[in-house]
Amino acid sequence: MEDFRNEYCMHTATCGQLRATDVNQEVTLCGWAWHTRDHGGLIFIDLRDRDGYTQVVVDPDCVSEEDFHAAEHLGREYVLKVSGRVRERAPEAINPNMITGEIEVLANAVQVLNTSVTPPFSIEDGIETDEITRMKWRYLDIRRPEMLANLKLRHTVTQAMRRALDERGFLEIETPILANSTPEGARDYIVPSRPNPGKFYALPQSPQQFKQMLMCAGVERYYQIARCFRDEDLRADRQPEFTQVDIEMSFVEGDDVCDMMEGVMAETLKAVGVTDVTFPLQKMQYADAMRDYGCDRPDVRFGMLLHDITDIVKDTGFKVFASVAQSGGVVKAINVKGAGDWSRGEVEKLASIAEANGAKGMAWVAFTTDGQEKSPIKKFFTDEEWAALKAEMEVEPGDLLLFAADKPEIANAVLSALRLHMADAMNIPREGHALLWVVNFPMFRYDEDEKKYAAEHHPFTHVLKEDLDKIESDPLACGSYSYDLVMDGFEVGGGTIRIHNAEEQRRILRVVGLTDEEIDEKFGHLIRALELGAPPHGGIALGLDRLVMLLARKDSIRDVIAFPKTSSASDPMTGAPSAVTGRQLKDVSLRIL
Amino acid sequence: MEDFRNEYCMHTATCGQLRATDVNQEVTLCGWAWHTRDHGGLIFIDLRDRDGYTQVVVDPDCVSEEDFHAAEHLGREYVLKVSGRVRERAPEAINPNMITGEIEVLANAVQVLNTSVTPPFSIEDGIETDEITRMKWRYLDIRRPEMLANLKLRHTVTQAMRRALDERGFLEIETPILANSTPEGARDYIVPSRPNPGKFYALPQSPQQFKQMLMCAGVERYYQIARCFRDEDLRADRQPEFTQVDIEMSFVEGDDVCDMMEGVMAETLKAVGVTDVTFPLQKMQYADAMRDYGCDRPDVRFGMLLHDITDIVKDTGFKVFASVAQSGGVVKAINVKGAGDWSRGEVEKLASIAEANGAKGMAWVAFTTDGQEKSPIKKFFTDEEWAALKAEMEVEPGDLLLFAADKPEIANAVLSALRLHMADAMNIPREGHALLWVVNFPMFRYDEDEKKYAAEHHPFTHVLKEDLDKIESDPLACGSYSYDLVMDGFEVGGGTIRIHNAEEQRRILRVVGLTDEEIDEKFGHLIRALELGAPPHGGIALGLDRLVMLLARKDSIRDVIAFPKTSSASDPMTGAPSAVTGRQLKDVSLRIL
Repeated sequence: MEDFRNEYCMHTATCGQLRATDVNQEVTLCGWAWHTRDHGGLIFIDLRDRDGYTQVVVDPDCVSEEDFHAAEHLGREYVLKVSGRVRERAPEAINPNMITGEIEVLANAVQVLNTSVTPPFSIEDGIETDEITRMKWRYLDIRRPEMLANLKLRHTVTQAMRRALDERGFLEIETPILANSTPEGARDYIVPSRPNPGKFYALPQSPQQFKQMLMCAGVERYYQIARCFRDEDLRADRQPEFTQVDIEMSFVEGDDVCDMMEGVMAETLKAVGVTDVTFPLQKMQYADAMRDYGCDRPDVRFGMLLHDITDIVKDTGFKVFASVAQSGGVVKAINVKGAGDWSRGEVEKLASIAEANGAKGMAWVAFTTDGQEKSPIKKFFTDEEWAALKAEMEVEPGDLLLFAADKPEIANAVLSALRLHMADAMNIPREGHALLWVVNFPMFRYDEDEKKYAAEHHPFTHVLKEDLDKIESDPLACGSYSYDLVMDGFEVGGGTIRIHNAEEQRRILRVVGLTDEEIDEKFGHLIRALELGAPPHGGIALGLDRLVMLLARKDSIRDVIAFPKTSSASDPMTGAPSAVTGRQLKDVSLRIL
Repeated sequence: MEDFRNEYCMHTATCGQLRATDVNQEVTLCGWAWHTRDHGGLIFIDLRDRDGYTQVVVDPDCVSEEDFHAAEHLGREYVLKVSGRVRERAPEAINPNMITGEIEVLANAVQVLNTSVTPPFSIEDGIETDEITRMKWRYLDIRRPEMLANLKLRHTVTQAMRRALDERGFLEIETPILANSTPEGARDYIVPSRPNPGKFYALPQSPQQFKQMLMCAGVERYYQIARCFRDEDLRADRQPEFTQVDIEMSFVEGDDVCDMMEGVMAETLKAVGVTDVTFPLQKMQYADAMRDYGCDRPDVRFGMLLHDITDIVKDTGFKVFASVAQSGGVVKAINVKGAGDWSRGEVEKLASIAEANGAKGMAWVAFTTDGQEKSPIKKFFTDEEWAALKAEMEVEPGDLLLFAADKPEIANAVLSALRLHMADAMNIPREGHALLWVVNFPMFRYDEDEKKYAAEHHPFTHVLKEDLDKIESDPLACGSYSYDLVMDGFEVGGGTIRIHNAEEQRRILRVVGLTDEEIDEKFGHLIRALELGAPPHGGIALGLDRLVMLLARKDSIRDVIAFPKTSSASDPMTGAPSAVTGRQLKDVSLRIL
């Protein structure tokens, strides 16, 4: 028996701990009355705690009348302290699906530590209770073994990361939550300051500026399991507050941060029993990820790659393709194996996915298993073009080709979405986990709405050495020292080597549209720090919630956060956010509109 | 050589690492040019990083002309990468006060990684730069070895605590920062919610309610290094945000939490080299602490205990004492050894300390080393009273007695303050660290301003079993299962066994003045949780900033926080808090008054 759990408390064993080797031990268990049944004059209780559950037998001959009466009148989720002797179960009663299934505890005392009113939903795995109800009674929801397992997994991941980072000489340092507004791009949460009327803190979207300051401070290796805040509209993998494993290192360049991170990830995955990821990880160029997968966070656990067929169709009679190809756009296609027999109706429904991603329509060709070629567009192709298309797409009977013809970003988005949709639709196995790096993102993108350049990662990113002279003359041609860690089709981490030269920092900020005055006003402290002996440095931030979500194989980060918020950013349990008093508003010199 | 620091980076050794055993190794160091001097045609650089500093010798015969030129023109805090060979120093050049003082590095390459403008203050320990300047350039302040040492100490303490808690089966769980208003007593920081106009989150003053919910959730053992927020006026040991090691356990009672905490503290102190604290710790009753030290956080590293002389003076001719003694007050005294020869003027200056703590004046008696008894009050005493006083106070020549006569709380506050002041004044040694528990605080105090009962710790505290029937009839007589961890005269932790019975919780909340409607409105979720099978539970919270401050022997928690705020709650480095745009205010439906 492990014993750390049972020091300093009422019980001597946990409900998940006893085995056949413990038979005849006198034990005390504490937990919740999970399932209770009366059978042959005896009362059987499944007593549950965070470790598991144990069958307790209450025999009127072995306990006091009072205790037996208590056991007869147990309600669901009553809290009990049970003392008794561990005994082997009868052979026919052994439950191999239960970790304590070889034994039971014959009670000699049963004490009700607390009663319970009837819970609003069952404390069982796989319940279909709506999520708002689960959140309102979150303390009951977490009692369910699958939720406790998620929190334990999160703990294990966090501790493994800390240990790995500690061993590599990183110092854990806390940075302010009451911080200043930063240009991460999302909306800040703002906090009024009472002694400074009309002024506000911003909750940090990330500790980016502080970690760069810590490098300037000579800390050399910093990490923090950092709470971050973004006031954005919420969806399944967004929460108003989230947690990132925030890491920064000095005297690094190029791949140094990735190499370090791989070591940490290897130890973390090992700690949670993930053994199917091999290191070193693949490093995929951003341009290749976009070309082959249409996105910068490819799920590489299956193929169905995007093929660029622009050259093949540039003179085709199918004018949609030809005009896109001739006007700087691209025509790309994926080959969905096994969907060649889909009906025209089924295939054409997929156009809605294409359209949701910006396409005006979706061309397709089905190659049925009995050798037919069905398509509205085949008639426009020459034999040579058709043969080249089939060769490029490696067509076999049973294949379905889906096309996108548009600006590259739209064509990629369309086929990336279709690829993932079809993987689900075709039940393509996506077992295990696939990690890789996507590296060398462009430094800038052109923001069509704002009519200006914006930083693809953030404006503190170091431009590739060979592109430094193109910052002003050809911003879109500048690459950057940047790397995203991608897992199972999700971005779980992202980082860059930072700028450590004040003048380079000013040049980048000018390209993204700031005047010298704005630079001094918003980024003066950063520029000053770079001028005062900033070392070369770089870092990365991992999204802890998402990483644990993927490891737990859940669809929502809410299942790996103890107390998440709803999609309207509220907490049904505590009622937050709530009204405040007039006095509280007056204290901070505010009025509600 | 340890090598963890030097993977994935430009250097192969740190500046604090090389010893005589490394002679003849080829190494690369990175760091800051700390002190540079030109001597006999050679350039000597003290190259500094977070680990220490190493003497680098640049000989024009051993480096390129370009590199020598760079070395000749180094400014303070230039960032360098130096490659070279480790060599023994000449015997007369060995510096035993420097960890790398046996060796130096003869450079074969010197690269300037970054330049620096002249820093606004010296990067040296013990500077007298004003604190606002240090905070404005915090990244320079932290480069100073003593500040880096503080951050390393904090890291070591934190990691040791986590390790100790992990080993005891605690799960680290994050609770919300965007929380709801709670009744901890201080002012909340409030955060407007955009999707819920007119509603606000409160930043948590502690995760108290969430940790209790986690116990109700069956987590059984929880901890968190938790950020907490209080919008109070600031002083040396207060910050708008602070960090507590927040711990909660289920199925515990009485001393269980203290026993656990002592194990964790023992391992933590060992990790930072504190060896003079012996466990188990003393448990001092709250009543005894108040009687002997006049406060609930006694510094027990020296004596000078308070003596209650009320009985001795109750009929004395000194009417101030007699009337206090006869009207329910107390007369107490301390004996300051070695101050008996202080002049009357010096002694009477102490009255200002007594008055600052609520006294109307301060009586005293000086016993000079040459046998005189000087006092304005002696004449009012009978010989018997005088003899009894001297016996009680164990008077010897050279002693100074200081008196307080008032309501107990004032007399205690006065003498507690005088005791600490006189310990400083007399240079009483307070080396090492002294930890103890102060336990069994009263459940309630009577708040004279608000004319109602208030909870001494908080209203979730379990009343002593034997006092449960006095909750309504005699609240001030109720003790509680409560324990403060006191170190060197500071409260470094406090906790209680919590109420797990819904009806007891309602009774306590009624005594502190809430109506049943207010209870349901403010504490409905807690009451509901207690009704749904809450286990017996209790916990503790340690003030991490203060603990590290004491271990670092600093006077201010600002010295152990990377980015603290000023006394007006602002950050001179980033400028937070700052103005926000009209758009930001409109988003959250607010207007500045």
